[in-house]
Amino acid sequence: MPEFPCDSVGLVAPQTAHFDDPLALACGKTLPAYDLVYETYGTLNAEGTNAVLICHALSGHHHAAGYHAADEHKPGWWDAHIGPGKSIDTNRFFVVSLNNLGGCHGSTGPVSENPDTGRQWGPDFPMVTVGDWVHSQARLADRLGIERFAAVIGGSLGGMQALQWALTYPERIANAVVIAATPKLSAQNIAFNEVARQAIRSDPDFHNGWYDEHGTVPRRGLKLARMVGHITYLSEDAMGSKFGRDLRSEDLNFGYDVEFQVESYLRHQGDTFSSSFDANTYLLMTKALDYFDPAAVHGGVLARAVAPAECPFLVVSFTSDWRFPPSRSRELANALIRAGKSVSYVNIDSPHGHDAFLLPEPRYQSVFGAFMSRAARELGLEEHA
Amino acid sequence: MPEFPCDSVGLVAPQTAHFDDPLALACGKTLPAYDLVYETYGTLNAEGTNAVLICHALSGHHHAAGYHAADEHKPGWWDAHIGPGKSIDTNRFFVVSLNNLGGCHGSTGPVSENPDTGRQWGPDFPMVTVGDWVHSQARLADRLGIERFAAVIGGSLGGMQALQWALTYPERIANAVVIAATPKLSAQNIAFNEVARQAIRSDPDFHNGWYDEHGTVPRRGLKLARMVGHITYLSEDAMGSKFGRDLRSEDLNFGYDVEFQVESYLRHQGDTFSSSFDANTYLLMTKALDYFDPAAVHGGVLARAVAPAECPFLVVSFTSDWRFPPSRSRELANALIRAGKSVSYVNIDSPHGHDAFLLPEPRYQSVFGAFMSRAARELGLEEHA
Repeated sequence: MPEFPCDSVGLVAPQTAHFDDPLALACGKTLPAYDLVYETYGTLNAEGTNAVLICHALSGHHHAAGYHAADEHKPGWWDAHIGPGKSIDTNRFFVVSLNNLGGCHGSTGPVSENPDTGRQWGPDFPMVTVGDWVHSQARLADRLGIERFAAVIGGSLGGMQALQWALTYPERIANAVVIAATPKLSAQNIAFNEVARQAIRSDPDFHNGWYDEHGTVPRRGLKLARMVGHITYLSEDAMGSKFGRDLRSEDLNFGYDVEFQVESYLRHQGDTFSSSFDANTYLLMTKALDYFDPAAVHGGVLARAVAPAECPFLVVSFTSDWRFPPSRSRELANALIRAGKSVSYVNIDSPHGHDAFLLPEPRYQSVFGAFMSRAARELGLEEHA
Repeated sequence: MPEFPCDSVGLVAPQTAHFDDPLALACGKTLPAYDLVYETYGTLNAEGTNAVLICHALSGHHHAAGYHAADEHKPGWWDAHIGPGKSIDTNRFFVVSLNNLGGCHGSTGPVSENPDTGRQWGPDFPMVTVGDWVHSQARLADRLGIERFAAVIGGSLGGMQALQWALTYPERIANAVVIAATPKLSAQNIAFNEVARQAIRSDPDFHNGWYDEHGTVPRRGLKLARMVGHITYLSEDAMGSKFGRDLRSEDLNFGYDVEFQVESYLRHQGDTFSSSFDANTYLLMTKALDYFDPAAVHGGVLARAVAPAECPFLVVSFTSDWRFPPSRSRELANALIRAGKSVSYVNIDSPHGHDAFLLPEPRYQSVFGAFMSRAARELGLEEHA
């Protein structure tokens, strides 16, 4: 038996659900068939009432908790919050975590085969939106026998999906947890995404998205996109206390090799990412972020857009998050209140910037855990450890 | 006679000063000879006591005020603040504005000929620092018969030069005006610079800096560098009120053409810059920013670093500047106070972010103008309009 931490879901394995029902997308195109790769943790109860859905962010995937192998040391991306006794307590809840459509971790996306051509979809893969994801996630719920989620939960772009769930399927979601998100991107948010897209699209190895057929990878562009992204994920203070102006070697080298530690960190982050993530997927994900704006069809009035929601909300922001600052979460919380919804809003004191939603922090864990416990009690869920 | 605004310095022309004295640089190399291109506005008085030096920022140059041609519509980059009756009143002051060493607007830099090889310096041009610039500027002052500047003035990287002047040549500077600057870059500032450098250096057309010999220009990299830069020059609010989430056409196109106005703006800024600025110069300028840290050799204690200064300081910041936020200017003002210096500090309420230092704003102009008037009075300068 491998030795995993006792509050870990342990060894997990992804599964694949194939869907033959065509999916009509917001862009006007239709996806004829698709796969969704997902993982589950915990046990679905007989009534099917204890399922929670985890929605991932820009570069996330289905592997949210546990380990894929006995000798693995790094658990899933949200392991700090999913497991026995954790905020999303797998002794109570059945957790479903998927890779979204358009992703590059197994679900149908640009690296999948286009049935019409027999070659990779590449840049022909249709643009997907948060709304499209929610539809596809509802079908996955049908497949798994989940009529109504005890909660839909996500951070950042994942939080937008949780919000959209409450608006699209109010009868299928008992609670929504929207963490470090925003009801819509600001011009500055879009601007940073546009820099990332231009970096990728102007890389000569991008070949208009047909890099796979050219045997290339737009690594330079992906690296730059990730470097820019990383700056926005960390707070200025977090970067300052992590790196300050520390030099990599004792003296200035007066050249373009790495001089300051922060340069080394960013280059490393960029390099790692550029050899593991698909460029077309990255482009799609940034556009899904840009497009998200549920208030747009309601004259920009968010309180009107959230009217269909019926479930209680937990909205969480982090003081040092400058990508989606607390003011954006408050905007959402206020709109929910104006619309007469039940909403708990908490602004967690954290120096870690946007990335704080991924990390364990006592007050965050306590608020998150309390909300989930209340949800479990109100749904009459029992521990089944 | 061309018709220029009556508060303009009118038609101006750059001049070139050639220096044969080798200049020892902080990086350990020596520049055997060099040119400095500069402009002057107003008249140097007989005593040579009314000269002010304007230091430029990252992508600036010597053309700070007036017009190069009768049919020109866009004046120099700081025309809002230099001219008859303006903050830097050319009826009182003789204004000197130069292109710094390493620049690409006429002063010796990477696009100049390397006398050792007969070809462009290119990437072989030695790294220059704020301290090196100040030394070269002092030589220009010698050449112009200016023993002591009535003021040395600059915004952003230019403000760092004004500060350095007060430390290196306390006897040659009567007043220092340090606007929208910082006593040193933060890790986040360095990180943004590093993204810009990586964008340029990873462009296949960069050829390790020898693009001119390859007949190429690393336009993609320069464009990305400028796009990232621009995001940091504008405040989130300024971007929001300028562009919001406005679409370029009525509907979403679900593609990668320009969709939001802010994308169009950034691409345009990037394109314009990439066809007018030298990549090696841009790299040098970002490194000069990174290196600036006068407190480093004083154990990080800024109050100790500023001890040599003798002149009064005006330190100005702008509320919405997040590139060099007000806290960085306060850090400098506090260090000056602790060191017993005379300092006026003002934080100007502006929505325009870092770029505010370039713009006319009544309170900014009033504070700046009052400081300069006091300087003129104390130096016994008369109007000579």
